[in-house]
Amino acid sequence: MAANGQRKEGIDGPTNPMVTPLLTDLYQFTMAYAYWKAAKHNDRAVFDLYFRRNPFGGEYTVFAGLEECIKLIANFRFSEDEIAFIKETLPTSCEDGFYDYLRSLDCSDVEIHAISEGFVVSPKIPLLRVEGPVAVAQLLETPLVNLINYASLVATNAARHRFVAGKSKLLLEFGLRRAHGPDGGIGASKYCYMGGFDATSNVAAGKLFGIPLRGTHSHAFVSSFMSPDEITEKSLHSSDGSHVCEDFVGSAQAWLSKLKVTSIQRSNLLGGIFAETNQSELAAFASYALAFPNNFLALVDTYDVMRSGIPNFCAIALALHDLGYKAVGIRLDSGDLAYLSCEARNFFKTIEKEFGVPDFGKMNITASNDLNEETLDALNKQGHEVDAFGIGTHLVTCYAQPALGVVFKLVEINNQPRIKLSEDVSKVSIPCKKRSYRLYGKEGYPLVDLMTGENETPPKYYKFPLSFHPIQLMLHKVDVYGSLYCLNGCKLPDLAAYFGLQAGERILCRHPFNESKRAYVVPQHVEELMKCYWPGRSGKVREELPPLKVIRERCIKHLEQMRPDHMRRLNPTPYKVSVSAKLYDFIHFLWLNEAPVGELQ
Amino acid sequence: MAANGQRKEGIDGPTNPMVTPLLTDLYQFTMAYAYWKAAKHNDRAVFDLYFRRNPFGGEYTVFAGLEECIKLIANFRFSEDEIAFIKETLPTSCEDGFYDYLRSLDCSDVEIHAISEGFVVSPKIPLLRVEGPVAVAQLLETPLVNLINYASLVATNAARHRFVAGKSKLLLEFGLRRAHGPDGGIGASKYCYMGGFDATSNVAAGKLFGIPLRGTHSHAFVSSFMSPDEITEKSLHSSDGSHVCEDFVGSAQAWLSKLKVTSIQRSNLLGGIFAETNQSELAAFASYALAFPNNFLALVDTYDVMRSGIPNFCAIALALHDLGYKAVGIRLDSGDLAYLSCEARNFFKTIEKEFGVPDFGKMNITASNDLNEETLDALNKQGHEVDAFGIGTHLVTCYAQPALGVVFKLVEINNQPRIKLSEDVSKVSIPCKKRSYRLYGKEGYPLVDLMTGENETPPKYYKFPLSFHPIQLMLHKVDVYGSLYCLNGCKLPDLAAYFGLQAGERILCRHPFNESKRAYVVPQHVEELMKCYWPGRSGKVREELPPLKVIRERCIKHLEQMRPDHMRRLNPTPYKVSVSAKLYDFIHFLWLNEAPVGELQ
Repeated sequence: MAANGQRKEGIDGPTNPMVTPLLTDLYQFTMAYAYWKAAKHNDRAVFDLYFRRNPFGGEYTVFAGLEECIKLIANFRFSEDEIAFIKETLPTSCEDGFYDYLRSLDCSDVEIHAISEGFVVSPKIPLLRVEGPVAVAQLLETPLVNLINYASLVATNAARHRFVAGKSKLLLEFGLRRAHGPDGGIGASKYCYMGGFDATSNVAAGKLFGIPLRGTHSHAFVSSFMSPDEITEKSLHSSDGSHVCEDFVGSAQAWLSKLKVTSIQRSNLLGGIFAETNQSELAAFASYALAFPNNFLALVDTYDVMRSGIPNFCAIALALHDLGYKAVGIRLDSGDLAYLSCEARNFFKTIEKEFGVPDFGKMNITASNDLNEETLDALNKQGHEVDAFGIGTHLVTCYAQPALGVVFKLVEINNQPRIKLSEDVSKVSIPCKKRSYRLYGKEGYPLVDLMTGENETPPKYYKFPLSFHPIQLMLHKVDVYGSLYCLNGCKLPDLAAYFGLQAGERILCRHPFNESKRAYVVPQHVEELMKCYWPGRSGKVREELPPLKVIRERCIKHLEQMRPDHMRRLNPTPYKVSVSAKLYDFIHFLWLNEAPVGELQ
Repeated sequence: MAANGQRKEGIDGPTNPMVTPLLTDLYQFTMAYAYWKAAKHNDRAVFDLYFRRNPFGGEYTVFAGLEECIKLIANFRFSEDEIAFIKETLPTSCEDGFYDYLRSLDCSDVEIHAISEGFVVSPKIPLLRVEGPVAVAQLLETPLVNLINYASLVATNAARHRFVAGKSKLLLEFGLRRAHGPDGGIGASKYCYMGGFDATSNVAAGKLFGIPLRGTHSHAFVSSFMSPDEITEKSLHSSDGSHVCEDFVGSAQAWLSKLKVTSIQRSNLLGGIFAETNQSELAAFASYALAFPNNFLALVDTYDVMRSGIPNFCAIALALHDLGYKAVGIRLDSGDLAYLSCEARNFFKTIEKEFGVPDFGKMNITASNDLNEETLDALNKQGHEVDAFGIGTHLVTCYAQPALGVVFKLVEINNQPRIKLSEDVSKVSIPCKKRSYRLYGKEGYPLVDLMTGENETPPKYYKFPLSFHPIQLMLHKVDVYGSLYCLNGCKLPDLAAYFGLQAGERILCRHPFNESKRAYVVPQHVEELMKCYWPGRSGKVREELPPLKVIRERCIKHLEQMRPDHMRRLNPTPYKVSVSAKLYDFIHFLWLNEAPVGELQ
């Protein structure tokens, strides 16, 4: 398996060794042959990779998958074995010179500009731009789209779940078993972490990407025990090693009897009073505690949460407490999670009070069982006491919308702009090699994304001449938005107004296809979105691929930076994507030029 | 990358080398440690792998993924590197002996029974039964569920698309770019083929599994051309090599002019009459035809299907025809596919008639563009002329339901039956090591699936003593359902009735959880569902893993064998899953035994 990270001499291959130049659609090879046959294979093409609509009814998408794309590009070469297979597959009439051409292929003449991984992105804006020989760029289409589509979709889904759950909750990705195949699972773990999850259950992903791992035991563990009698080694030394409890199971059973006759029972907290808890469950919990006295977290719903799981858990936790250990908590995997978590919390708090066990009331409550954005939202509305959510199926399969429509469109060839028309206006491509900018407003929020032609003057904004101007002395800090604050806390625009300076140039932002939708924007700050991630022969500096943790932090920061109304789960305010006036005119000139004209008779 | 197929000395590893024993949930390791610490790790456990509900609102599921499971099991061993990572991950308090235990682990003591891959299966019936040391069986849980969940889901989805499209249509899987990661795509290609698709666009899957490959060119190919002038090499020799057309492009342009003034135009077949077709499109088509004169299939919707794509295609196809080549057809990727395919067909037929080109009217029409069960059904209702469907997103992401809920439940340990209770009855597990049978009725359709205890007498059915009975002479054939026909075409049950024989024993089939639902069945034929795919130390014969093509044929046969009302897309008749009377009684005895009893005061 390819190791993660970078080799001394270059960039390692994709995480999944199955990602080879053959992981593409057959038509990329038939086209490559046709290009080659027409001596057109080295025509210089520019392709934009973008999506047309945000997923999940939202107004944002997290861009993910770039690192794997660059790893593919850096190692893009056909093996003899692969070439032999292509030869076998194409018609026998295809000339041998083509296979020599394939033999010589790599991405040294390809240039990749991309938005950085973890950025919040919007429809139509190129996420990645591929420039290079048209045949090579086409061969890259399918794997690039594959590597970005699911990555961005599931990272966005993770971000959405984080948004509903709130910052304070621990979010655990538990989806491996339901994911679409092995690296559906591995990808899910990587990109959910990027989108704001805290940990995964997937050990392979933990090893590959350094993601924190979480997990305790399943229902099967509980039901694999028959009774406490089968535990032969019942002794447990105390946390400080000072003494040994010879019969830990007996100690837990004693606590269970005590719980039965306390005021907890009388106060009817257990929603009906428990009589006999399930003894195989008690045995399983005891066994797990004996193995992990410092990490005791029990799944309490194998038989009956309130009548068996919780009392059994508390008996073990109290027995652990007697030995100086602190139990971690419980996991609920069925039933009414709002109700059960509140009941459990009350029970824990009552124990804290009744038996004077410090922090027993703060016991961690983890919930799982088919959670998604809706159920998290419903739990919030009902009120709950859950500290951590384990989310699987809905998260990793992107149940609410399992596909993102990333496309890869030719926008220029041999310096000639190209357009793809469609009866559906939303499917018309935006031609030309372009630049994209994010324009920020006074409040520090992104206002609009703007595409311009490659050679248009970039939008101007107020760059304060720090070193020459007298206000320099009053400067206090520069915040993440590039806004300047002075000592009295007022922002630079106010100062700029005070000094009669303008914050930025007025820029006309136009909807690419709707002539009536346009707005003037005076940006407070402008950020160019694409950077060079693979310079080819351009001589540009290659942007480094940062570690996953850095991408994750960037992603979380960018999500927090968005204006809250764009982030709403339901009916969010549309985030605007625009083109410059010049580009608008050019699109529509080209459109008229390419569309066939009918004749009425 | 692991090669596919079998090595001399055993079974190769999983197709995706990322499928290792580490591709599992962390809790499998924490449980393994707790079992080991309690000296319980070698307790003999039986786990059933099954799902609870058919996907897509249907009444059937195709079982897929078994081969990859067996490949994992056959090669299940931890590397030192993996053990080091587990040690790093578990608490430092874990004893070193556990890692020695992991070092010694393999699946030589595990026994796997499974339904054969490609079978039509139903909820609750074990698809796979794992017997072995409890700790090992648990470690297998996550990867087995992962490998079967998506495989079965997408194979079922493919079968459903085939059912709506009909047997005569060519179905092409085009989903790689939208699949959930690289082997989401590779898995999709494998299992869609298994479920009845004819080919894929995914070259890597073609190489790995020998699936037929299909594909021609994209919109980008079309828009990469500017005009016919850029084609420098315009000559094409005739199909029989007897002469050369020096200007193939000119020949196509001449045909285009001819098409403009014919009665085809006058008859207004082009839905408005075409004037100038898009010349860059004509150039692209010409170029593709020059590269693949025997395989000319053109994507006709880059600019305008009726005003440009179809006339341009026909001009090229007619020019090819002049040289003795036969064009393959067109692909439509947008717009009203029903209408456009019918218009295109009419146009082709008119050309056949007008210019006397044989079979021009039978030109292949492929359609793609976000197809799914509903759109296929709608196309059928509207009437269309499509011969082949290219299906991507909805097929491979299982858009209509992106997850199958395969679970893995402990049903026995140390010969003691175990049950998992739940407030949701559908989540209660069916305890005991079991056998499953499919009972067939008179018409040859499966009637009901039946689970019994492992040691119950198998259900009896009429096995005709062929070699001794006088009707032997009248026997004509044995059909796929095991029904016997005599020379006059009447089925054995009639004969059996005639001779006063009974077709089978009356068997009481009970719903596992609903006491009022039960039925007597007199099966015509009984098939035991699970076979031994990994004998462990049992000495049983290991069922061979057949090639993909054989599984595919089996799958198609099994799907055809189902009673049509179970296969309906909407509101299908439920297919019954039952337990024997004995097993029913036992389930309910155990249930009462395990459920905690409350006390009312």
